[in-house]
Amino acid sequence: MNYSIIRYILFCVLEFTGVFMSLPCLVAVIYQEKSGFAFLAVMLFALLAGAVGRRFKPKSKVFYAREGFVTVSLSWLLLSVVGALPFFLSGEIPSFTDALYETIAGLTTTGNSILPDVEVLSRCIQFWRLFTHWIGGMGVLVLILAVLPLSGSYNMHLMRAESPGPSVGKLVPKVRQTAIILYGIYVALTVVQVIALLIAGLPLFDSLTMSFSTMGTGGFGIVNSSAAGYSAPVQVILLVFMLLCGINFNIYYLFLIKKPKDVLLNTEMRWYLVFILLSAGCFLVNIRPLFDSLGEALRHSLFQSVSIITTTGLTTTNYMQWPVLTQTVIFLLSICGACAGSTGGGFKVSRVIILFRTVQNEMLHVIHPKSVRKVQYDGRNLGGEVTKSVQVYLVIYVMVFLGSALLIAGDGFDFTTNMSAIVACLNNIGPGLNAVGPAGNFSIFSEFSKYVLMFDMLIGRLELIPLLILLTPRTWKK
Amino acid sequence: MNYSIIRYILFCVLEFTGVFMSLPCLVAVIYQEKSGFAFLAVMLFALLAGAVGRRFKPKSKVFYAREGFVTVSLSWLLLSVVGALPFFLSGEIPSFTDALYETIAGLTTTGNSILPDVEVLSRCIQFWRLFTHWIGGMGVLVLILAVLPLSGSYNMHLMRAESPGPSVGKLVPKVRQTAIILYGIYVALTVVQVIALLIAGLPLFDSLTMSFSTMGTGGFGIVNSSAAGYSAPVQVILLVFMLLCGINFNIYYLFLIKKPKDVLLNTEMRWYLVFILLSAGCFLVNIRPLFDSLGEALRHSLFQSVSIITTTGLTTTNYMQWPVLTQTVIFLLSICGACAGSTGGGFKVSRVIILFRTVQNEMLHVIHPKSVRKVQYDGRNLGGEVTKSVQVYLVIYVMVFLGSALLIAGDGFDFTTNMSAIVACLNNIGPGLNAVGPAGNFSIFSEFSKYVLMFDMLIGRLELIPLLILLTPRTWKK
Repeated sequence: MNYSIIRYILFCVLEFTGVFMSLPCLVAVIYQEKSGFAFLAVMLFALLAGAVGRRFKPKSKVFYAREGFVTVSLSWLLLSVVGALPFFLSGEIPSFTDALYETIAGLTTTGNSILPDVEVLSRCIQFWRLFTHWIGGMGVLVLILAVLPLSGSYNMHLMRAESPGPSVGKLVPKVRQTAIILYGIYVALTVVQVIALLIAGLPLFDSLTMSFSTMGTGGFGIVNSSAAGYSAPVQVILLVFMLLCGINFNIYYLFLIKKPKDVLLNTEMRWYLVFILLSAGCFLVNIRPLFDSLGEALRHSLFQSVSIITTTGLTTTNYMQWPVLTQTVIFLLSICGACAGSTGGGFKVSRVIILFRTVQNEMLHVIHPKSVRKVQYDGRNLGGEVTKSVQVYLVIYVMVFLGSALLIAGDGFDFTTNMSAIVACLNNIGPGLNAVGPAGNFSIFSEFSKYVLMFDMLIGRLELIPLLILLTPRTWKK
Repeated sequence: MNYSIIRYILFCVLEFTGVFMSLPCLVAVIYQEKSGFAFLAVMLFALLAGAVGRRFKPKSKVFYAREGFVTVSLSWLLLSVVGALPFFLSGEIPSFTDALYETIAGLTTTGNSILPDVEVLSRCIQFWRLFTHWIGGMGVLVLILAVLPLSGSYNMHLMRAESPGPSVGKLVPKVRQTAIILYGIYVALTVVQVIALLIAGLPLFDSLTMSFSTMGTGGFGIVNSSAAGYSAPVQVILLVFMLLCGINFNIYYLFLIKKPKDVLLNTEMRWYLVFILLSAGCFLVNIRPLFDSLGEALRHSLFQSVSIITTTGLTTTNYMQWPVLTQTVIFLLSICGACAGSTGGGFKVSRVIILFRTVQNEMLHVIHPKSVRKVQYDGRNLGGEVTKSVQVYLVIYVMVFLGSALLIAGDGFDFTTNMSAIVACLNNIGPGLNAVGPAGNFSIFSEFSKYVLMFDMLIGRLELIPLLILLTPRTWKK
């Protein structure tokens, strides 16, 4: 294990955290809030410690997949702990566990709050809560790769460990250029959304924060009613940008370099849209009687469908009052998740497709044992390594799911609450069913269960492997 | 597809069904019940049709895995439909759907009844209900292989398609001998259990039927209280034989040929016992306050633990009144299931172990990419085909589970009821949670959902692949 380089990158992450905190500091100055001092203190500490730590250059550039996974895991843990400090130091979230939970729910873009009332928070705290979604959506290491002129083999390992999806493709030969393009698109889309929300009549603060929430497919809101209190045009804008952020960002790059044909060939995006339309149709049929007009029912159907499949988790209505069939569809959608390479979480549409095709392939193999076929995806043969990694992904996913269910069962909540809470955390959605439904809150869980759920949120966002590698004793043996 | 041989074997199955029905006929004669005429009619039809059909010998002996899976699927469907006829014709189960459900719940050794009151049934109907567990436990095709002097390559394909577990080993070079040994052990254990129950004071009819129920790890009872009404010694005997039937029957053969060392090396049995002890311990700690004495709490803990992991589903107490933590353990145990090559259902302990070791192996591969290791099991390297098939098994399992959850959600029952009903059917357990818990009943579901659950029971008993092959259009193309 190359400790010196891991340490070096962790100090970079610390410094970046300090830079991020300048924004809530600015908000505190504008609104003249004393919680700003908490941000100022943490910012100065992070900038100073980061600058000092980065003076010790790494001794060796040896960097394998193992180092990549460990670095990404530790970076996210560091970012979570330092990011939680302002919540705690300002006294606005008095328990450190809760502050950490809120930060991890933010960074992992899960968005399930432990705060029963978010409207009493000061503006700078609100801003930081929602800004964590934006940071976590595209990933902090991708940002570091884009900004710092790091060179060497570790770029790709870091990018692969932090980016979601079964296989990560570079847009251009250089990793740094790829990271710059991704963040460029991300910033551009955010700016467009903020302008759209301003035009729709939302104040600047709300436009900014809700853009962070949807761009990262996070789901935190700045009012207790999530997205239910906004006007129809605002809800439609949120819906459109959630939809856009659930798509692989490579697609936008293909548009930019004028290869729209390749966009149409993208299997994952087609199925993503099919799933949304099917589930929204199912919702519409089932909830039509609950609303006055067809238009309203359609808006709620589409909003909920997109909000869940992108694992944002914003709600315009309490779906616990919908029929059980629609709740089951919500459960399935939330497990499915968005596209690889998007800011959304979940299992990812591409993995679902690959698994279906693997099964199909295996059946054909039983029927014609002598024929050797590979799984087809996007018009080409998938290597055995990819299909295997997707299968192993499901195996670990199920294990983490069942193990967590056991660990939090001691709290005594009903089965549906427990199961859906874990699905909500593992897939970075936000709300679950029953006691953790849209009207509920994750503050009900015990301290111990909260740590289990934090682990689930992190392992879900980082797609299982990095945290498992961190926890495997063999990783640390010479 | 070699249709002539499939047809030939199906007629064998029909004839055997006729032979099986001679037993309830005998019971009807003893108790002088007129429902016996239903059995007589079906028996004569089955024997006659079977005998006539079997006169057309198969034209070709070509028989591949594909034919094996199709034959096994069709055999079970045939057995289910013909087995349901006496329930329906006698008028004791007036709806054919319900009669079919009850038969499939019997044959697949699921044991979740749609009958709110089983005590009003006549003795011959009772006998047939519980005898289906015994037939389904070891499998009808294994019996045919043992009895009929079939020769050719298809023996092994049939045996493999019907026997549970990731890989089926022959005990002796000849398939027919293996089948004879397995059924020999099965009959011998049944006889010992009947004698034990007689000594414990149970009447002959009860001893026989409850032995069928536990030997097949089925779970039907002949009283409405399942096993709760029996004396402590009877419950302990049931417990011991459930435990024995959840173990791979190969183990008993190794004992018989005096190779006890190989028994101790059996990884699966060791973990099976560990899981039982751990879960029973967890139950004991949690339910101790609910019972008067430690001994009683221990008996209920062990009974429930063994009954669920073997997927029998008999109950001595209503575990819906236990804490949620224990219900979660029950949920996990029921998914795990018993050992391969036993009469129990579920995912199988060996598959669980193989999946854990696969994940472990994958982690080591990430840490040391250049090292090539295979998954170790029972002291030897597992081939890539076996680990792959276990992974694919989980993939299909999850798909069937989630798909079924969607299909039965329209009935409007709560989430926990739906999810646990599917787990109970897919793993051939019996009772689930909430409305389908020990105090509930599967009659609550709609006709459509019942067919979904029947499908789940069959696909669970036949371990997914055979029914999927039957339903793949490519199977039927020339």
